[in-house]
Amino acid sequence: MPVDIVLLQPESPGNIGSVARVMKNLSFGNLVLVNPCPVTNETKGFAMHARDLVEKAKIKKEMDWDSYDLVVGTTGIKVGKNPLRSYITPEDLRKRMGKGKVAIVFGRESRGLSKRELERCGCICHIPTSGDYPVMNLSHSVAIVLYELGKSKPEKDLAEQQQISNLENLFKGVIERLNYSQDKKKIIYTYLRNVIERSILSKKEASILTGLFKKIRGRV
Amino acid sequence: MPVDIVLLQPESPGNIGSVARVMKNLSFGNLVLVNPCPVTNETKGFAMHARDLVEKAKIKKEMDWDSYDLVVGTTGIKVGKNPLRSYITPEDLRKRMGKGKVAIVFGRESRGLSKRELERCGCICHIPTSGDYPVMNLSHSVAIVLYELGKSKPEKDLAEQQQISNLENLFKGVIERLNYSQDKKKIIYTYLRNVIERSILSKKEASILTGLFKKIRGRV
Repeated sequence: MPVDIVLLQPESPGNIGSVARVMKNLSFGNLVLVNPCPVTNETKGFAMHARDLVEKAKIKKEMDWDSYDLVVGTTGIKVGKNPLRSYITPEDLRKRMGKGKVAIVFGRESRGLSKRELERCGCICHIPTSGDYPVMNLSHSVAIVLYELGKSKPEKDLAEQQQISNLENLFKGVIERLNYSQDKKKIIYTYLRNVIERSILSKKEASILTGLFKKIRGRV
Repeated sequence: MPVDIVLLQPESPGNIGSVARVMKNLSFGNLVLVNPCPVTNETKGFAMHARDLVEKAKIKKEMDWDSYDLVVGTTGIKVGKNPLRSYITPEDLRKRMGKGKVAIVFGRESRGLSKRELERCGCICHIPTSGDYPVMNLSHSVAIVLYELGKSKPEKDLAEQQQISNLENLFKGVIERLNYSQDKKKIIYTYLRNVIERSILSKKEASILTGLFKKIRGRV
């Protein structure tokens, strides 16, 4: 599947290998390592027969946020106090996958993705886990997400991230013109953004909604 | 969930710990070790905050085949030459789980469950994997099977159908007031409706969007 599996600052050489193994088990071939710990013999040991994936992994200094149509962030812990973003399950993600260029980003073993990094993601995927012990091993998270995605092929022609950003800016512009308090405007915008992100728009849908909201903006 | 996770002759102390961790992550508590390798500090290391599961694991010399209502065997490789047994996916397994006492048995890292052991199982579960490299790490297999079994009903406070219908009528009202051709109005309405239905709104989201579109309708 043409999806980049991105490990952002992985801290354990062994985990990189485990991730490569399960990627190959589940037919995913593109591993991207952003500012990783050293790739060692331990990495190759855990990779077993997936050393080729480790060897051809792209190593980058920084995450290329803008080179994807959709960047999916992952998080082990729902930030309950942050009602601003909504979380989708791996199953939701599968149902909404389309044809564009997609990255699924897994954060550091110790502290996952930062708030700021999650903010840059088009949607956030969370595996439903036990309240007692929600933090999964990195390669287990990858295993579950890829297993779920592997269940079906994407069909939809995904909207590009730029289209979604433009649409979200339009929402902002429309809401700005309505007589709500500043706080309320922010909340409404966030709810609307969540709904749109959760539905993972196709190109066509994004274009139709953009046209509609341009017209609305001209009128309100 | 009252299911025994049975590792039959596990060979790597670390894997036992990894399995315990992912069991606790996914809210499974009963670990059974049949004729295992020694449980070591490495086991506890990999178990992280699931050491309690390792400590209370039942250790047995032999598998108690007859003390369960259903014993589910697992295998990484479909034995093509043995057409007598059929294989079910983890998803099939979930759909078929009932209320009885169930064991899910995972075999040795090196060679899985024997033909004879699989023969004694009530059904055999196989995770769909790549033909290139089908053999998964033990704890990854456990992660995927338990993730699938743990899937339950959505907890979200879903919007009622009436709320959705009202919201969709509002969309219609707004679009009606914009200068599109009748055909185009119908198309736009349908797209918007698709997006909304796909995102499965909560009560709160439906209410926020209803408020927003009422305001917009008043203005356009």
